[in-house]
Amino acid sequence: MNQKFTVLGGGSWATAIVKMLCVNQEKVGWYMRNSDAVGFINIQKHNPNYLTSVTFDTNQLELTDDINKAVDNSDILIFAIPSAFVEGELKKITSSLKDKIVFSAIKGIVPETGLIVGKHFHEKYGIPFENIGVITGPCHAEEVALERLSYLTIACADTEKAEYLAKNLSSDYIKTKVTKDIIGTEYAAMLKNIYAIAAGIAHGLGYGDNFQSVLMSNAIREMKRYTKRIHKIDRNINESAYLGDLLVTGYSTFSRNRMFGNMIGKGYTVKSAQMEMRMVAEGYYATKSAYEIKSNFKKKVKVPIIDAVYAVLYEDKSAKKVFNALTDKLD
Amino acid sequence: MNQKFTVLGGGSWATAIVKMLCVNQEKVGWYMRNSDAVGFINIQKHNPNYLTSVTFDTNQLELTDDINKAVDNSDILIFAIPSAFVEGELKKITSSLKDKIVFSAIKGIVPETGLIVGKHFHEKYGIPFENIGVITGPCHAEEVALERLSYLTIACADTEKAEYLAKNLSSDYIKTKVTKDIIGTEYAAMLKNIYAIAAGIAHGLGYGDNFQSVLMSNAIREMKRYTKRIHKIDRNINESAYLGDLLVTGYSTFSRNRMFGNMIGKGYTVKSAQMEMRMVAEGYYATKSAYEIKSNFKKKVKVPIIDAVYAVLYEDKSAKKVFNALTDKLD
Repeated sequence: MNQKFTVLGGGSWATAIVKMLCVNQEKVGWYMRNSDAVGFINIQKHNPNYLTSVTFDTNQLELTDDINKAVDNSDILIFAIPSAFVEGELKKITSSLKDKIVFSAIKGIVPETGLIVGKHFHEKYGIPFENIGVITGPCHAEEVALERLSYLTIACADTEKAEYLAKNLSSDYIKTKVTKDIIGTEYAAMLKNIYAIAAGIAHGLGYGDNFQSVLMSNAIREMKRYTKRIHKIDRNINESAYLGDLLVTGYSTFSRNRMFGNMIGKGYTVKSAQMEMRMVAEGYYATKSAYEIKSNFKKKVKVPIIDAVYAVLYEDKSAKKVFNALTDKLD
Repeated sequence: MNQKFTVLGGGSWATAIVKMLCVNQEKVGWYMRNSDAVGFINIQKHNPNYLTSVTFDTNQLELTDDINKAVDNSDILIFAIPSAFVEGELKKITSSLKDKIVFSAIKGIVPETGLIVGKHFHEKYGIPFENIGVITGPCHAEEVALERLSYLTIACADTEKAEYLAKNLSSDYIKTKVTKDIIGTEYAAMLKNIYAIAAGIAHGLGYGDNFQSVLMSNAIREMKRYTKRIHKIDRNINESAYLGDLLVTGYSTFSRNRMFGNMIGKGYTVKSAQMEMRMVAEGYYATKSAYEIKSNFKKKVKVPIIDAVYAVLYEDKSAKKVFNALTDKLD
């Protein structure tokens, strides 16, 4: 039985996911709140703001700026909205989400509840865990636009649902694998943004490639300890969904998190870096959430990189001093 | 008791090690076979060919082009000669090496014996294992020249000797740690050059950053399996000496191994790439050695990336076809 997919979001990652689904589905639902963009795509056949080189066959698209219409018409919802805005969109939904399958392509914590997106869906909207999943990279949307080979990991407690989505995202240039580790993949996707900020700060302060490799080597060990404390299962942290995702972000000079960190390292204040970028990098919120969550762990966990980024972003500490102290904690 | 160090080699890594030792030692021995370079350094105070920005206080240096004089005058020898030339140099030595402490800063296999350098010292020159050690990165020599913070790992079965060298390499910009895992660090240093060639080939063929991160994530898992089969100990493959070293090379666009791979990926033959580069990348030999060594394992090990690089470099297979098949073996 064919199930109807709808992607929610108007950014580059949402656009990339719609592109992937269009390879395998005759019709794909696509909600975005910007009605001008909906109108633009219907006429110009591409997103006006993101991945503008990707042309769609608009006969395949069911575009709408009405989230309730989008939800009612679908079996599987894929959320690709920045975590800071997802609750605002969810609040608009009047019909029940309980019988929907919901996948999150969002990296981060929902600020309103301090929960990762999967848990937020479950606790706030009563969606059972077997109907909640995660789509994770390593994957820059820009390379999907160019149809460059990319690997996705689809996580869901119900493997059949993960495989159904995986099949529908797969193509010549997209390979997929499935896992049951929703919590680990979600946390990894969130933590990597903090490590990308750390990489940016280090670069901004003048540290070089030798240090960057040491930082990443410590970051993956830290991520392993953190995710193990959150949800202890037999997880190989060096799989693409964890290490690969860390690397694609931590080594990307286009990553907004890394750029944000770089400005901080160069001496910008948090506020001025955010104003200059005209946006808030996901990792900024993730740092606060990850720090608070681990502070509540009964058994403490050693996460010197998260601590350092937190001190710089939220305690107004000098990046230079904090990173100088950090270098003694790494090995 | 102060022990006398001599560095053997005239390249960038040898030059960097001499620089590090000069921070802590009053006198440092330095052998290079190029007598013109010896004469040049004595007058101009810097290496004419490598890390030319590094100025030495020549009162600290005991430069010589006579390897026997160099050996006789030292307690600790640090070899930083490309693996393809090391046996040629060793053959010149007439005095015994048996009572010397020998550290290898060489990455690769000695072609004459097919052994990693430590084993070569032991089997061919009768040096006991407790007097053999390894210096490993992640460390681009160029960043040592710039005094950018770098981390070294010093491996020796005799921890005291590792710590003595570590102390003498340490400075404001060099942090060190010690390990007993000589075999694992040596193999890791060799294997990473093969993975850097793979990264180069992939880049040359047009694969992007998403694939690169998947390749590195698979490479570290492959390195773990390989080193475990060679020498099974409790080793955290995500430490800087293994993962860090892989990343600093695999992500470096300056790596000669990656450059070599890139030319192969772009369609050069192995011969023409080598002629164009006017040198043979270490990873070229490492590929053959690693492939042959693992082919003799009693219990087989899955190393699809090494197999792929071997097929391209030594079996004249099409890089495009081989890597296309490789993409199905990665995840």
